[in-house]
Amino acid sequence: MPDTDEHIRFDDLVAAIDRTLQAAGASPEAASIMARNFAGCERDGALSHGVFRVPQIVETLNTGYLDGTAEPTAEAVSPTYIRVDAKSGFAQLAIERARPLALQALEQHGMAVIAIRDSHHHSALWPDLEPFADAGFVAITAVTAGVPNTAPLGANSPVYGTNPLAYAAPVAGSRPLVVDFATSAMSMGDVTLTANEGRQVPEGTGLDSEGQATTDAAKIVAGGSLLPFGGHKGAALSLMVELLASALTGGDFSVEAAPGKPEGAASTQTGQFLLLIDPNRGGSADFAARAAQLIGVLRDAGIERIPADRRYRTRDEAEARGIPVTPAIRELLAT
Amino acid sequence: MPDTDEHIRFDDLVAAIDRTLQAAGASPEAASIMARNFAGCERDGALSHGVFRVPQIVETLNTGYLDGTAEPTAEAVSPTYIRVDAKSGFAQLAIERARPLALQALEQHGMAVIAIRDSHHHSALWPDLEPFADAGFVAITAVTAGVPNTAPLGANSPVYGTNPLAYAAPVAGSRPLVVDFATSAMSMGDVTLTANEGRQVPEGTGLDSEGQATTDAAKIVAGGSLLPFGGHKGAALSLMVELLASALTGGDFSVEAAPGKPEGAASTQTGQFLLLIDPNRGGSADFAARAAQLIGVLRDAGIERIPADRRYRTRDEAEARGIPVTPAIRELLAT
Repeated sequence: MPDTDEHIRFDDLVAAIDRTLQAAGASPEAASIMARNFAGCERDGALSHGVFRVPQIVETLNTGYLDGTAEPTAEAVSPTYIRVDAKSGFAQLAIERARPLALQALEQHGMAVIAIRDSHHHSALWPDLEPFADAGFVAITAVTAGVPNTAPLGANSPVYGTNPLAYAAPVAGSRPLVVDFATSAMSMGDVTLTANEGRQVPEGTGLDSEGQATTDAAKIVAGGSLLPFGGHKGAALSLMVELLASALTGGDFSVEAAPGKPEGAASTQTGQFLLLIDPNRGGSADFAARAAQLIGVLRDAGIERIPADRRYRTRDEAEARGIPVTPAIRELLAT
Repeated sequence: MPDTDEHIRFDDLVAAIDRTLQAAGASPEAASIMARNFAGCERDGALSHGVFRVPQIVETLNTGYLDGTAEPTAEAVSPTYIRVDAKSGFAQLAIERARPLALQALEQHGMAVIAIRDSHHHSALWPDLEPFADAGFVAITAVTAGVPNTAPLGANSPVYGTNPLAYAAPVAGSRPLVVDFATSAMSMGDVTLTANEGRQVPEGTGLDSEGQATTDAAKIVAGGSLLPFGGHKGAALSLMVELLASALTGGDFSVEAAPGKPEGAASTQTGQFLLLIDPNRGGSADFAARAAQLIGVLRDAGIERIPADRRYRTRDEAEARGIPVTPAIRELLAT
């Protein structure tokens, strides 16, 4: 929690971000979707995906690499398979365009795949999934994260981005379970901070420029790579993300997207994969009730914090008292 | 590689396993599918899922808990959503029953979900996926692995099984990429071996009976738990496997299945989730060619071994020279 007594209402923060994005050339619809997205991350305590990202997006819009006026086209190539050309625009707007087709597929056939190409995703993944889980669906998504800075053990150059993966599921009697994580062991930003402080990173965090494992943060920053989390299993997941979110969608791989990225651009044009399932078609018991049962088992085993618990608690506080005003928010309001 | 000069032909090994399983009461069809499955694992060098498992399956059939004569029923609850009641039989037979419906869904709509409940899976997952990837499809599967022996950090009792996850993808110019791994950090068998040798396990392997992290293998074995691989990210995947493979399918969670398991039973009645996608419907370039490109990038970065490389090399050797005869095979042939 930032050390501040000043707070801002969610709607006011949304309005301020919306104005800023429209001033940078985003269409009213794109600005509105992204303003709610970044303000939502800020409200929920995910500050690294919150207002902090707004100036980065403004700069990326200014380069022309991210098109704030792009009109994504969604087509149902089958009753359950939706293919979206994001046309160099926001992935979140592409999802919005796919939503009516996806909801129809879910209603009629109990499932949908959304394959988005040529999209920019520069936020958390959980805002993409939470509405689907709120509506009772299981949702999974993966995004090729652009800047190649991650490589499996033994590689002498980075291959993957931080390639996040997320899933969401409805839970009876509580808000949905939504899990969202990078398949890299750490962010390059955190490794850089550690290097600047002259500290070491844990084993399994990264490689030096020769592809050798190191705990020397400075060597990782100087031409090395991050490692995927969890050894070869995590590496297999980083690879899966590129295959689903880029090869399957028609988007660029991390190594392909990066060279076309102009100076100052923060987001990268790749792709996103989403899978949506009505979980009650497969089983014989209500899914959300079953999920609640399993989470009960975890709590009974002494697990105090279930994924998303903290996010919802922070959200509740923000809804009661407003969102704490950080320097990033102050800067936003001053522009 | 076992230290032996004796070899057996794949078809002869299949025939021996088939006879053994039929003698234990499995139907000809179930015995045939499982014989090819176990012999395939043995041939490919996955000995822990090979002939080694056959006596365990025989014992499980003898308890009556696993029904070798079960006739699974597959129904298409939508053109792309296939729901299978395995009726306490082999998961692999359930997949076989779902296959025609799945292939029809893939041809017509580019995707299929298979939700299998009340199934026993006591082999590797890659044999379930490889045929779909051979046919050009992307496939993902998850199995709730039964015996609860894994728990997230802080839990004072096990919640999950080893909960494996696998995916497969076609690759132009080579055999498919097939990745298959447990979401637990290690197998309990390996921890037990380490404990017996009085050695320590790596950090992140397990918890003692109080839920405290330990590298003392003996404390993990004595009422402790394995940890999921890769910290909280791997734990989120263990949870995802239970949600997809049990809650969504209508099968039991690990903690529910275990109490009903009779003495001597090796497999556990849970559930399995499969997702199949025709990857060429989503993109604008041939998926297999794109996957080959990305694997080329990995090889160029110095990665010598891509997942499944070793399996295919071992398979090629076995096809040329036969399968090395281990003590387990000798025992099988003597019965």
